[in-house]
Formats: sequence, structure tokens, C-alpha cells
Amino acid sequence: MVEKKYYAIGVDIGGTNMPSSLVDNTGKVVYAIEKKTLPEQGPEALVLRISESIKELLTYFKGTLKKETILGIGLGVPGLLDGKKGEIVTCPNLHGWKNVPIVNLVKQKIKLPVLMDNDANCAAIGEHWVGAGKGAKNSILLTLGSGVGGGIIIDNKIYRGSHGVAGELGHITIVAEGILCGCGNYGCLESYASANATAKRAKERLRNENVISTLREKDINQITAQDIFLHAESGDVFSSNILFESGKYLGVGIAVFANIFDPDVIIIGGGLSAAEKYLLPTAIDEADRRTFKHIMNKMKIKKAKLGNNSGMIGAAKLIFDK
Amino acid sequence: MVEKKYYAIGVDIGGTNMPSSLVDNTGKVVYAIEKKTLPEQGPEALVLRISESIKELLTYFKGTLKKETILGIGLGVPGLLDGKKGEIVTCPNLHGWKNVPIVNLVKQKIKLPVLMDNDANCAAIGEHWVGAGKGAKNSILLTLGSGVGGGIIIDNKIYRGSHGVAGELGHITIVAEGILCGCGNYGCLESYASANATAKRAKERLRNENVISTLREKDINQITAQDIFLHAESGDVFSSNILFESGKYLGVGIAVFANIFDPDVIIIGGGLSAAEKYLLPTAIDEADRRTFKHIMNKMKIKKAKLGNNSGMIGAAKLIFDK
Repeated sequence: MVEKKYYAIGVDIGGTNMPSSLVDNTGKVVYAIEKKTLPEQGPEALVLRISESIKELLTYFKGTLKKETILGIGLGVPGLLDGKKGEIVTCPNLHGWKNVPIVNLVKQKIKLPVLMDNDANCAAIGEHWVGAGKGAKNSILLTLGSGVGGGIIIDNKIYRGSHGVAGELGHITIVAEGILCGCGNYGCLESYASANATAKRAKERLRNENVISTLREKDINQITAQDIFLHAESGDVFSSNILFESGKYLGVGIAVFANIFDPDVIIIGGGLSAAEKYLLPTAIDEADRRTFKHIMNKMKIKKAKLGNNSGMIGAAKLIFDK
Repeated sequence: MVEKKYYAIGVDIGGTNMPSSLVDNTGKVVYAIEKKTLPEQGPEALVLRISESIKELLTYFKGTLKKETILGIGLGVPGLLDGKKGEIVTCPNLHGWKNVPIVNLVKQKIKLPVLMDNDANCAAIGEHWVGAGKGAKNSILLTLGSGVGGGIIIDNKIYRGSHGVAGELGHITIVAEGILCGCGNYGCLESYASANATAKRAKERLRNENVISTLREKDINQITAQDIFLHAESGDVFSSNILFESGKYLGVGIAVFANIFDPDVIIIGGGLSAAEKYLLPTAIDEADRRTFKHIMNKMKIKKAKLGNNSGMIGAAKLIFDK
């Protein structure tokens, strides 16, 4: 017997890029394309670009797939959302858009059901479905990118909180009197373990301390976390130490979530997780010092598996879950 | 039509005292008694005292209540439990008992179903059922006692984690390089906002700094959080400042849980919450500085309502939920 296949389209709206794909009901990406987000052109232009992406995907499969097997469109959107209204309430990453009824705007262009969720929630859903969290009843995804985001899976479902905005996992205080964070709080995990925080710490040391590093060959103002990773890989001790430090703070965060959630697994994703060989051993060491033994002994700490695909796969899953 | 009433017995095994009561299916305590725990006498002696308590409760109602309306016995137990085996794995508050099959021991004495949960979970269940968390879908209870404990209610149910030990809410790191905690971690919320931490901070200042305080009339080594509260009430500025500081750290913790859980309510209980007039305004101020506005604006912060009864009421609820 051949299992019947269904499909959904997942769109992951990032600050810069917008990958989208046709995903089947086993979580496989059948075909993917990518466009620029270009948020500075405004919501209408973005909706047009989303609908073009979707039409491209649909055209590609015209004749191969029956129309009725494509169940709908899931959107992963950065920022604060009102799920009931289908609105982007506010979104710093999309040029500060406010009160954009994105779901209805897309529905007007494409005659298919449209659902949306926060991009971090979509990534957590994706990793839980077919990634590093597969089979885990309770899991935490931490994404280390320009910020630190995340999602909480409880009892195999995404946890959204009482007002739809749970899971601000980068904004837990780990140093009460610490660094001022973009969110207005002091000492957030994000201010210590994100890619931006990692780069900022390196730049400050290079400016203010007499450290030796091959990073000095670059314009200090332009140094990114990726540079630091590449220089660490080339044997620069300063660079690897900077990454070890981020790993240490990541470990503090992991311990916080471990002691609260006693999860099956904590998954580390986002761009900076490419530097896992520096981050994860230090993070695991630090988490081990800080977590209850009976939790640490049973919990896994894993790198995310789906890379940049987690968001669109999770967005598509919104449709299959409906 | 008269609703039929059912009853369960809740026993809250504390390090010192062991209150127990007959609770009806509306959450009302019908009759309560209290015995000493005396853990130094060992598990068998405690089980005997538990069964004596239960027999006293049953005897009191002999003739009034039908035996079949009493559905079972719920135990609130401090320490690390193995719910499946019905065992106390380890418990520092009960003279370090290890691998005590408490559920079976009680069952052997009393022919009724017996269930158990962690004392902090029982308190959270009690507050959610008929206390400050009533009607809240998602809530967090923080108990400020000798330590900081807590429980997590998600979707109207206690959240126990993947291995039954979630909710170590006192052991989140809020100061990465902070005070060494009894758990082995550094900078735990418990080391800053518990009754013991509050007393310890006061004693250290009185010893090491030239502060003026009416607490100096006492033997410094014997000062408790309750003394500090009483002296604050009598106008001692040092004492009220110490409590304000604990409130500030409590606020840091509240913000962490708020940004993670986006709950309906965070409930503050435990002995130290008697000092709410010092703790809560400062805690709310601090949490407000650190929490996302859209969470803070909708979330409530409340004092626990059931006092010392929450544990036994929640323990009884285990039976009604079965």
C-alpha cells in the first residue's frame, strides 16, 4: 500500500532572506527557493514576493501534484505576532512594521489556507518534527544568531504561553548587574552568547587590551562572529578563547533551562552553532557544573540538525497540524 | 439537586511538621491535624505517624461520612522522587533518606489508594486549584522558604518534565559568578531571595559593616528572616533595606520566568512571603524593568492564598485527578 502524500508550503521570512519550500507530510523538503526579503520596500511588496515564491513552487509541480494535495501555506515571521488576528504587531527586523495583517494579505493573493507563527517557534517545531528533537517529548531549542532566540516544546507541542509570546529564551537574566541588552534588560543571555555579543566582546578586547590575535589584520569595527570562528580554525588562540567564553555563558543558559524544564534534549541552532567544536564542549562542562545531576545525566545537548531549513519546515508543519 | 461529595486525605510531609487533612472535592479543608515529622526516627516511624494521622482523620468522621466517599491519600514529599516506583530517591530534608518506598509503606498500613508528588508541586497544584492561581491556564508558583522552590502549571496541569524532576525554580542562575549555593551551582535565585539567604546577608553585614540596626540587640548568629521582618515592621531601616534587596532579586527571578513562560500569573508563597509589603513592590518594580512589556502588561504577580495549606490541598488533589 502506498501512503498518500500531502504537501504544505513553508515560508521563513527573515530580516534579509526569505527561503520557502514545498514540504511533504513526512517533513521532507521537496523543492526550495529563496528570495530576498527587502523589508524596506514595505509589507505590500513583501506579500507580492511571497506570492511569487508560492506561485513558482506551485508552477514547478503543475502536472506532477494534484492541487488538492497542497493543503496550505505556513509563514514563519520574526517579531511580535497576534496569532488570533494574523497580524504582525511589531517587528524590529522588518523595518519596524506595525500592525500588518500579513495572513489576510497573503490569503488575498493565494487561495489557500494560511497560518503563521513566530520564526523561532517554527524552527523549534521543525527540529522537533524531523530534526534533533525528533522523538523528544519535551525539548528546548536555543538559536544563536544575531540575537538568541528559541522555542519550547512541551508534550510534543510548541508552548506559546498565555498571551502567545512565550519563549523569549535569550532574555533570561544570567548576570543581574550585567551588560545592557537591546531589550532594555541587563545581563540577558543574548548579551553574552549570541553571535553579535561574541563579536562585540572580541572587538572591545582588541581595542582596549594588548592582546595578540590574527584578527588584528582586519578592520576591527568589521569583525563578525564568523571571522572569529575562521581565525580560531586557523589557530588564533584569542579567537578560540572568545568562543570558549560564549560557550561558557551558553552553558549557564542551558543549566537554567535544564533545572526548570528537565527536558529530554536542549538543541543548539543558529548561525553561531557552526562553531560548535568551540562552544559545545565548554557549554556542556559549564552546564554540568550548574545542573542537578539527575537532570544532567538523562538530558541530551545536541546541535540542531536542519540548519536554515528548520524555519520553513516548521512553518509547513503548522498546516499539517491544523 | 445535591452534588455528591467525595473526599481525599492530603499529607504534607515537611522537614519539621506534617500537617494532614481531609479535603473535599471542591478543595475545602474539612478537618486538619498536625504532627511532627521527626525524620531522625527513620522511615518506619514516619509511616506509623502518617497512618496514625490518617486514622485520626478517619475516626473523626466515622459515622458521618461513608467510607466509599474517601477516595485515597495524597502525599506531598520533599526531595527527589521516583513517581513510578513510589520511592523517595533522596531527601536532604528527611535526614538524607535514600530509596524509601514510601507509597507502598503507607499502603501496607492503610487500605486506600496512595499517590505522591514533590511538596512544591503539591503546593502549585493547590494554589492552582483553589488559591491564587485559580482560573489561570499557565502559572508559576515560587515559594520563598529556607530555600526557593516552585511548581509550574502548564495548560492547567502540573509540569513534571521528562524525568519527573522539573521545576527546580530556585536553582536558576541569576548572577553567573555569584554566591555558592547549597546545590553546588553559583548565583542561584535561592542564594539571593530565600529566607535563609535574606538572614545570611543581614548577618554578614552586621558582622562586617558598621551598620546601625535594632537587630544588634539580638545574638547575630541567631537572626532569622522573621526577625528581620519584625524589626522592619518596628521601623528598623537596615531590616527593611535587606528585605527590599531580597525583593529586588525576586524580581530578577520573576522576569526570567515571565520572559520564558508568558504566564497568566506568578504566585509568591512560602514563609518569607509574609514580608510581602517589603518584597512585592520592589520585586514588581524590578521585574517590570526586565520583562517584555507585552508580557508584563498582561501577567499578574500575586501572593499565594492558601498559606501552609497549599501542600496538603494539592496532595489531596492528586487523588481527585486520578
